[in-house]
Amino acid sequence: MASAGGSGGRPQRADARRNIAAILDAAVLCLAEDPDASLGDIAQAAGVGRVTLYGHFKSRADLVDAVLTRTMAEADEILDRVDTTGDPSAALTRLVEASWQIVHQFRAVHRAAGRELPAERLHGSHDRVRRRIQSIVERGRRSGTFRGDLPAKWLTTTVVGLMHAAAEESAAGRLAAGDAPRLISATVLAALTAPDESSGASSG
Amino acid sequence: MASAGGSGGRPQRADARRNIAAILDAAVLCLAEDPDASLGDIAQAAGVGRVTLYGHFKSRADLVDAVLTRTMAEADEILDRVDTTGDPSAALTRLVEASWQIVHQFRAVHRAAGRELPAERLHGSHDRVRRRIQSIVERGRRSGTFRGDLPAKWLTTTVVGLMHAAAEESAAGRLAAGDAPRLISATVLAALTAPDESSGASSG
Repeated sequence: MASAGGSGGRPQRADARRNIAAILDAAVLCLAEDPDASLGDIAQAAGVGRVTLYGHFKSRADLVDAVLTRTMAEADEILDRVDTTGDPSAALTRLVEASWQIVHQFRAVHRAAGRELPAERLHGSHDRVRRRIQSIVERGRRSGTFRGDLPAKWLTTTVVGLMHAAAEESAAGRLAAGDAPRLISATVLAALTAPDESSGASSG
Repeated sequence: MASAGGSGGRPQRADARRNIAAILDAAVLCLAEDPDASLGDIAQAAGVGRVTLYGHFKSRADLVDAVLTRTMAEADEILDRVDTTGDPSAALTRLVEASWQIVHQFRAVHRAAGRELPAERLHGSHDRVRRRIQSIVERGRRSGTFRGDLPAKWLTTTVVGLMHAAAEESAAGRLAAGDAPRLISATVLAALTAPDESSGASSG
């Protein structure tokens, strides 16, 4: 764990706090450009010496872990602002829009973390978005808005999975980031709605 | 590129071919257990010496590349057996079942390749499944089975993305692999069907 000047410890000096913030900012930018960015690249982008960087972060994994921690805090702020009450379809649409920002914006950090950190460390991060979506999915199933013939966990995976798929497409330049929330919501709402009994099914 | 005894070259000796096959088999198994498996681990599992392994594969990237090439050939065999004619929903269901096998079975290889090889190298692999799905999606749109209000490319991303999401869930022990094709198909068919005009939409 990176030093964070937590309770009980000696208070961090202001310049140390500033350096840590600059390093984390630079790391987010560098990793977005190149998930393999080195500590040297990041130190240079942050305008600090390598010795200073190593003074705060023992290793690349340590720095990526700290970036992930800050990213999760920012994600929580975005998610906490979403109104998840009312009609489940509308609530899910709002949550998808906010979650998309997170998935899209922090994709590079997650990618770097996926290479550097144990898989379990990333689950905590995915769970933030996932828990909230699952809660709306379950509410929508209880109210009959969403289908009850498939597990709530799978429907949640559907929503999260489509956001990640859209983020990949966007990063690869095959999908405009601005189009993604609309496409995700339109697809997800259709996927989560109970199958229409009246339509003549023709599958074999 | 690994040596493959191609046209124009000196024919490979039988024991060299056997060794390469054993190394590739071992690599698939080792990488499934640990995406970071070393060349030493793989040589040991293949029952060959490290010198023999290095004689065929200059580096870990070289070996992972060769594993990926063989995996793609196997994927083509599976996909070529799928009947993609007739009703688009039924054809998509059959293709999803076959593609799921590939995505699930070769997930570890792709994961290792994703860490070791350039991103472009993996796109060729994803494209095999993707191209076939997109072709059914487009046919289903022309026949009015699938929705025309969202881009065919996005609907294809939806199908592929859900398979990958299911593979992740299955690998994490949260989804039984045997349940996946049914869940994917049920979700995908609902997502790809044109929105029902008659249902009273209540989204804001």
